[in-house]
Amino acid sequence: MVFPQPDMTAFPELAMPPRVLLGPGPSMVDPRVLRAMATPLVGHLDPAFIQLMDRTKELLRYTFQTANDLTLPISGTGTAAMEAAVANMVEPGDSVLVCINGYFGMRLAEMAQRYGGDVETIRVPWGDVFDAAAVKAALDQRPAQVVMIVHGETSSGAAQPIAEIAQVVHEQGGVLIVDTVASLAGVPVLVDAWDIDVCYSGAQKCLSCPPGASPITLGARAVEKLEKRATPVANWYLDLTLLRTYWGTARAYHHTAPISTNYAFYEALRLVAEEGLEARWARHRRTAESLWSGLADLDLTLHVAPDYRLASLTTVRIPAGLDEAAIRTRLLADYNVEIAGGLGELKGQVWRVGLMGYSARQENVTLLLGALRNLIR
Amino acid sequence: MVFPQPDMTAFPELAMPPRVLLGPGPSMVDPRVLRAMATPLVGHLDPAFIQLMDRTKELLRYTFQTANDLTLPISGTGTAAMEAAVANMVEPGDSVLVCINGYFGMRLAEMAQRYGGDVETIRVPWGDVFDAAAVKAALDQRPAQVVMIVHGETSSGAAQPIAEIAQVVHEQGGVLIVDTVASLAGVPVLVDAWDIDVCYSGAQKCLSCPPGASPITLGARAVEKLEKRATPVANWYLDLTLLRTYWGTARAYHHTAPISTNYAFYEALRLVAEEGLEARWARHRRTAESLWSGLADLDLTLHVAPDYRLASLTTVRIPAGLDEAAIRTRLLADYNVEIAGGLGELKGQVWRVGLMGYSARQENVTLLLGALRNLIR
Repeated sequence: MVFPQPDMTAFPELAMPPRVLLGPGPSMVDPRVLRAMATPLVGHLDPAFIQLMDRTKELLRYTFQTANDLTLPISGTGTAAMEAAVANMVEPGDSVLVCINGYFGMRLAEMAQRYGGDVETIRVPWGDVFDAAAVKAALDQRPAQVVMIVHGETSSGAAQPIAEIAQVVHEQGGVLIVDTVASLAGVPVLVDAWDIDVCYSGAQKCLSCPPGASPITLGARAVEKLEKRATPVANWYLDLTLLRTYWGTARAYHHTAPISTNYAFYEALRLVAEEGLEARWARHRRTAESLWSGLADLDLTLHVAPDYRLASLTTVRIPAGLDEAAIRTRLLADYNVEIAGGLGELKGQVWRVGLMGYSARQENVTLLLGALRNLIR
Repeated sequence: MVFPQPDMTAFPELAMPPRVLLGPGPSMVDPRVLRAMATPLVGHLDPAFIQLMDRTKELLRYTFQTANDLTLPISGTGTAAMEAAVANMVEPGDSVLVCINGYFGMRLAEMAQRYGGDVETIRVPWGDVFDAAAVKAALDQRPAQVVMIVHGETSSGAAQPIAEIAQVVHEQGGVLIVDTVASLAGVPVLVDAWDIDVCYSGAQKCLSCPPGASPITLGARAVEKLEKRATPVANWYLDLTLLRTYWGTARAYHHTAPISTNYAFYEALRLVAEEGLEARWARHRRTAESLWSGLADLDLTLHVAPDYRLASLTTVRIPAGLDEAAIRTRLLADYNVEIAGGLGELKGQVWRVGLMGYSARQENVTLLLGALRNLIR
């Protein structure tokens, strides 16, 4: 043995601080979900697990508000679901339009390029949203087989209207990929009513599940594009032509699903269904409005205009002269409260406050406002 | 709302049967690991999580028996770690040799093709292993920049000697990727002593951690090949040039790590280090020999020759005329014991019995042998 047994005093028992998670994710997790996660494992082809997969797909369809058959959790974090959407829809040479108004739009463009897409982008400032006319103008100039847009931009706090853009994309014959990582189960996401072709999300935001299982759903146009591919999906792990046989009736072995995370994910979806989407959206809205009103009392202003504000993620302008990182450090050290700084072009300009899923509770708003009041004055 | 709130009676509380997991994975999980998994979450950039990442990398180096700096868990199941190895090492046009003696060798070849590799394969029957001379002969015919081989083939139960093959590959200037999904922490895997360039594994086998975090390590030759790539890694989620900045000192945001799974993974690695690798290998060997001897008493024969038998995964020949699937169904229904059938060309010919990690205990061997005795006679 070249490397000896480690001195275990350097590797103590896990002892994590009791954080109040009010950043852009992960959000806090309901104790019921944590308990589900600690359930002893069954095999990934066990009849009991297969039943769980079926129930999960059904609850996920409710959560996405869709009847899409191809609706399942990807075995990875939200970025893996994003990559699954891109890898399965973009074939080398495909004309792709990406609407960029934040960090995750940029990431979509980067991924689309790696999969061989011929990518064009349109941009508005981070915090603004696109109107359908701008998308139509871009598509009139150059049609696109795939259009990508982010519904709830975690980097900016903007909520993008989708339905009209979907119509524009379809009139021109493309498929629309919509990122709902920061919005699903927190604000309205209506996959069928808005006619979204590919919609994906993460577990660790408004679903309040530990990251590691990330939902995706494909409608008829997307399935048709998938089935008509001339080339295999470049990404084997995320290849939906294979994944659908594992999650479908064939149950063909593809990979070992993250059993425990799937337990947690099922319990998280049960909590969504028990509460009901409308009640859940209303709770997120109510909590966000309480935060916005309290921030105004502290003379803090918000980065996004009221009409396009995402209830699940608020961007707060940093007052001139304030050391924003020092405030965040003290929030964490003195109050166990996590919020995040800005990302990309909003770095140093905003704080990002998430009120997502189990974190979206009045007591968390009151704690954060009280702590900020103490730290800023 | 198009789709109404579900009737919750169709979605009852999670109630999983208490399985004794003796298949090819997932294996059973130590209660300490399950408890770690149920710990409330911190953020993925929390100082406490970053400390956990550092400790995890250190314990992982011990587990792999390596000093490699670039050693981390991929945020996905074992197949994701396999794809990470392939995606980062294979550039379009690279000459690749894949040694196939089972299902996972085939999968490696399939992935290498998707990443644009110019793939040749050599084959021996499932259950046999390669000798270094055969690999040398293939490389003499056509040199390869990347060679891939499976150390412990979960589909066949064969344990492949590695050190001599590594030498042959290096003499010819290639890098060697070794799959240790079914072997790491169950039988000796000595990354530095054997001079392996890229080694990956899964969590849910001999590490006995729920699937979702899958270790990989890259040595100097592999890092050099990575850094000299002419093209970006086609797979964004698994791009090690990005992942190393998140797991390295820069801590650059890449994706949200599966926090809870990383808690569990750390605890699983602590259990490996506490037990010590040599003691752990001896336990796996002892338990396997007890199984092999008991199977002989039942007049059952093993598929793999004694010299190349994998202690963590045993393939048992199905006696002529026996309905093997019916036996497995009754093992599960009457005894809560999971074993697996054959995969690929061994389908219907063998059972696969895993004694991995926390499952590798004498009481499980005794239970399985007793149940088989009842069912076969």
